Amino acid sequence: MTDCALCRDDGGLLLWRGKGWRVVRALGAEVAAAPAWYRVIAAAHVAEWSDLSPTEQARAMTLVTAVERALRATLAPAKVNLASLGNVVPHLHWHVIARFDWDSRFPAPVWAPAQRGDDALRLAALRERLPACDAEVVRMLEGLSHSSMEELGP
Amino acid sequence: MTDCALCRDDGGLLLWRGKGWRVVRALGAEVAAAPAWYRVIAAAHVAEWSDLSPTEQARAMTLVTAVERALRATLAPAKVNLASLGNVVPHLHWHVIARFDWDSRFPAPVWAPAQRGDDALRLAALRERLPACDAEVVRMLEGLSHSSMEELGP
Repeated sequence: MTDCALCRDDGGLLLWRGKGWRVVRALGAEVAAAPAWYRVIAAAHVAEWSDLSPTEQARAMTLVTAVERALRATLAPAKVNLASLGNVVPHLHWHVIARFDWDSRFPAPVWAPAQRGDDALRLAALRERLPACDAEVVRMLEGLSHSSMEELGP
Repeated sequence: MTDCALCRDDGGLLLWRGKGWRVVRALGAEVAAAPAWYRVIAAAHVAEWSDLSPTEQARAMTLVTAVERALRATLAPAKVNLASLGNVVPHLHWHVIARFDWDSRFPAPVWAPAQRGDDALRLAALRERLPACDAEVVRMLEGLSHSSMEELGP
């Protein structure tokens, strides 16, 4: 498993780690055009969603939903995009990405070619708000651990 | 709501319709490079995942998981890709896409530019197997209605 990037590394700025899952904000060139890009990453090296138990799936989607809510509350995006692809790194992870109508790919997926140039001013303003968004993500996830996550069981 | 394509039309070949959701196989030029492309579509015009109740979310992911299992069982893909984007049509729908290492975008997302030409023979062979995959999707979904879906409640 040492050749799996998500077994070896956190896969971004680590915001939260709980039972079976961690949450990071993605960093680097890959997310330059859409920097409000978070990931909910399985602790275990499992490839496919349908390999998870219903309990593990429920836990994952509770986390994805919490991250989405934090993004909506702090960034008011035009749309949130969710995806679990894993073609390059077949270690289950959910992308949770805030999209804006001014971003260079919108309304296409972030993986599509750019439709327009980057809006440097708006991107810079968005990046300035990411620490506050990170904090809200953490707050939402910590709130879960005192309520619904405990009900999800082992 | 009449200007929403997924309120107006099924959004593909209708395979199953149940409480709150329907399942279709996507058709047309959009899926030419990855034709084993299914969608789990909300009946209601709701945009964001986090607007759904936990019960509705659980129902959706039960359906997504069943579709993924049908694809794996009948097509043995290299990877299944899941996504809920909705930037163009903000009416909640999950893409469930079987990916193959020979497809023209692999390992990039289906929305990325082609990395190689289409493999016409393999694509034709895959298309021939889609009716059998459709039938397995239907069988899996009908099986759910007699078990876990009833437990998910109203």
